[in-house]
Amino acid sequence: MQQIEKQVVDWLDNHLAKAIRLLKRLVGEKSTFGAEFNAQAIVLEKLRQFKMDIDVWEPSLKQLKQHPYFKSDRTDFSESPNIVAKKAGESNGRSLILNGHIDVVPAGDIKAWKSEPFQAAEENGRIYGRGSTDMKGGNTALLFALEALHACGVKLKGDLFFQSVVDEECGGAGTLSAIMRGYRADGALIPEPTNMKLFIKQQGSLWFRITVKGLSAHGGTRYEGVSAIEKSMHVISALQELEKVRNARISDPLYEGIPIPVPINVGSIAGGEWPSSVCDRAVIQGRCGIAPHEKPEAVKEEMTNWLKDLEYRDEWFKRHPVKLEWYGAQWLPNDLPKDHDLVSVLQSSYEKIRHTEPVIEASPWGTDGGLLHHAAQTPVIVFGPGETKTAHQANEYIEIEALLESAKIISLFIMDWCGIHEQGSEADDQSDEA
Amino acid sequence: MQQIEKQVVDWLDNHLAKAIRLLKRLVGEKSTFGAEFNAQAIVLEKLRQFKMDIDVWEPSLKQLKQHPYFKSDRTDFSESPNIVAKKAGESNGRSLILNGHIDVVPAGDIKAWKSEPFQAAEENGRIYGRGSTDMKGGNTALLFALEALHACGVKLKGDLFFQSVVDEECGGAGTLSAIMRGYRADGALIPEPTNMKLFIKQQGSLWFRITVKGLSAHGGTRYEGVSAIEKSMHVISALQELEKVRNARISDPLYEGIPIPVPINVGSIAGGEWPSSVCDRAVIQGRCGIAPHEKPEAVKEEMTNWLKDLEYRDEWFKRHPVKLEWYGAQWLPNDLPKDHDLVSVLQSSYEKIRHTEPVIEASPWGTDGGLLHHAAQTPVIVFGPGETKTAHQANEYIEIEALLESAKIISLFIMDWCGIHEQGSEADDQSDEA
Repeated sequence: MQQIEKQVVDWLDNHLAKAIRLLKRLVGEKSTFGAEFNAQAIVLEKLRQFKMDIDVWEPSLKQLKQHPYFKSDRTDFSESPNIVAKKAGESNGRSLILNGHIDVVPAGDIKAWKSEPFQAAEENGRIYGRGSTDMKGGNTALLFALEALHACGVKLKGDLFFQSVVDEECGGAGTLSAIMRGYRADGALIPEPTNMKLFIKQQGSLWFRITVKGLSAHGGTRYEGVSAIEKSMHVISALQELEKVRNARISDPLYEGIPIPVPINVGSIAGGEWPSSVCDRAVIQGRCGIAPHEKPEAVKEEMTNWLKDLEYRDEWFKRHPVKLEWYGAQWLPNDLPKDHDLVSVLQSSYEKIRHTEPVIEASPWGTDGGLLHHAAQTPVIVFGPGETKTAHQANEYIEIEALLESAKIISLFIMDWCGIHEQGSEADDQSDEA
Repeated sequence: MQQIEKQVVDWLDNHLAKAIRLLKRLVGEKSTFGAEFNAQAIVLEKLRQFKMDIDVWEPSLKQLKQHPYFKSDRTDFSESPNIVAKKAGESNGRSLILNGHIDVVPAGDIKAWKSEPFQAAEENGRIYGRGSTDMKGGNTALLFALEALHACGVKLKGDLFFQSVVDEECGGAGTLSAIMRGYRADGALIPEPTNMKLFIKQQGSLWFRITVKGLSAHGGTRYEGVSAIEKSMHVISALQELEKVRNARISDPLYEGIPIPVPINVGSIAGGEWPSSVCDRAVIQGRCGIAPHEKPEAVKEEMTNWLKDLEYRDEWFKRHPVKLEWYGAQWLPNDLPKDHDLVSVLQSSYEKIRHTEPVIEASPWGTDGGLLHHAAQTPVIVFGPGETKTAHQANEYIEIEALLESAKIISLFIMDWCGIHEQGSEADDQSDEA
């Protein structure tokens, strides 16, 4: 490592408490769908310390609707500002976008949590709380890296953009709005929880809603009705089989370690309103993965045709076909060539810290990287602390050690990718209490 | 038929428009759970014309809670008054309770209705609307019969009670409150929709709630979670099999024509809140029938044990057993001996109008008759217009002809059961515009 690299890494080692404090504050703000304001205020307060040009705006629904990739049901962004902070490069190095989403999914069954989901709890080297892994931990790693570079006086050749976006969990309207505002770069890094692996391909995904019809009747003569709940069981079985068929086709070795590369997740079911009535309508909602090589339209067509065949399982569906809708979110898949510079530069930074080769994989879930790739022609690599298996779960947590290591790797990566213009000297860690 | 009987029947034939108008007004009031007030006001307005002693009160939750048969989740009766009207007998004839519930179930899927559910529509000799059959049609037949007796100046030997009760669909708190207020009689008739059959046995029923656990995860790595929706499919299959086992035991010939004498109806399912998350909790709610000979406690025990065996279907349930609760409503079963006078008297009235023998059956659904039988020692027969298969359904309707015929049969039944004290003469059909 060069001297400046060592200086930055040492600074990070010596200021870990700052990162922990920041992450705890971010977890403490319940930044679910449409309520990202308070968490963004904390990000803003932090960014103001780094002497970057700050751009804060509410995404415009009117403008977003004009974009072919806008697929959200969202109508109101008044509590959901986006933030982009820019550090202009000193000369003509490569530009870089660091992108993280500030929104989190709901807590789920509150009883399954050992601690308050929106109150960070530290235990055994971990920080627990909704969003700790997905992805306030990654965001904290970015901000911690920026703070180290600032504190160590690092000046970069290329432009550096930090983006704290809303709405990733609902389809990416935040990142799309940043793209429509003109933000793009020679490369981007998204620190979603990859468990420190380099994810160069990401699955895309679509949300679907299937409405199943029944025939209402009094529960006491239920044989005179048709239960939409019973019929839904056929629909769920059919989706399980479609998932098998779709995944049997995936041969990409990057997906080797992943049991279901392109899952179909039935996330919710709701049917019936009265215990003594036969349920006449049930609604199934879920998420269907898109393989990196697939087009969303082809996936839609396949599921549409598959559900038409329900009538061979049960004659009821012949006269009462299910209704399939694609609603809300859509994440585009992403595909970065393995020989792209983003991979080699990040690999080199990784090895300097971890002294071993990184695992390079495809991710079974989508990110805003698909949008940056398709809509902003910005190549994207996904790398961050935390494990997917704790994301969207009760007792979500992040390892503090991974948070620190990823901040170190990302700092080195930024310096290498953008280039160091001139070595700074004076550290100013008094001025920036978080 | 005696002269007075013929006079009453003729009066009903000549005043059918009154009954139709009354039923339409009742259907027009959305008297679902906790909102029975306006429909009761119409009943009250009608009853005031018949010179009966009227008792109107809000059931007292505090008092109801002291009764062992009170099983409702209901907490507020402020919009749910009960009405009992009494016509004291002239001498010592048999007393009779006419009992009908004014509450209706919700409309269900509004799109399945051809007309507004809470706006009566007349077409091809039918009246459509929620509650037309279950059981504002039966209530209208009772009121129409009372009006005929009043108009024809019929005086009865025994006491006659008309009860318009709330809360039948939620467990019978209305009838229970009337019983606790002291109302009982030598016999009772409940005109629930039996399609003009005489129902002497009624199935009881219990509401159950089953909570199924899963393990939350990101939908993109759904294999790291456990779907409570998938596990619910096992639970529903188990309930379907339990229903088969329970019904295979029923040998009573009264149930011969009924495909499922004691059904288990899964009325609703709700699980998951996010398409991209694995569902970690699903709740199934339904209604379990109790055979006339069964005790509720025995039924509860059987289902409890049955669900314990889920672990043999799927190991998940060994460490995560489902939670079974009995909540809200309970209807006690009813059992009237076939040789009871209520049967022979009603049969005789029936034959005078229809000139054929009535069908005597057991009903696959419960009524407030179980409470009258068990808590008020009042023998109960159930007989009324309308078919169960339209109850609790979209496009619920009643045949106007059946409404008229049942009013005739019930009028004759009242006169025969209570006895005629002295024949009235002057009809006063000017004084009572509905």
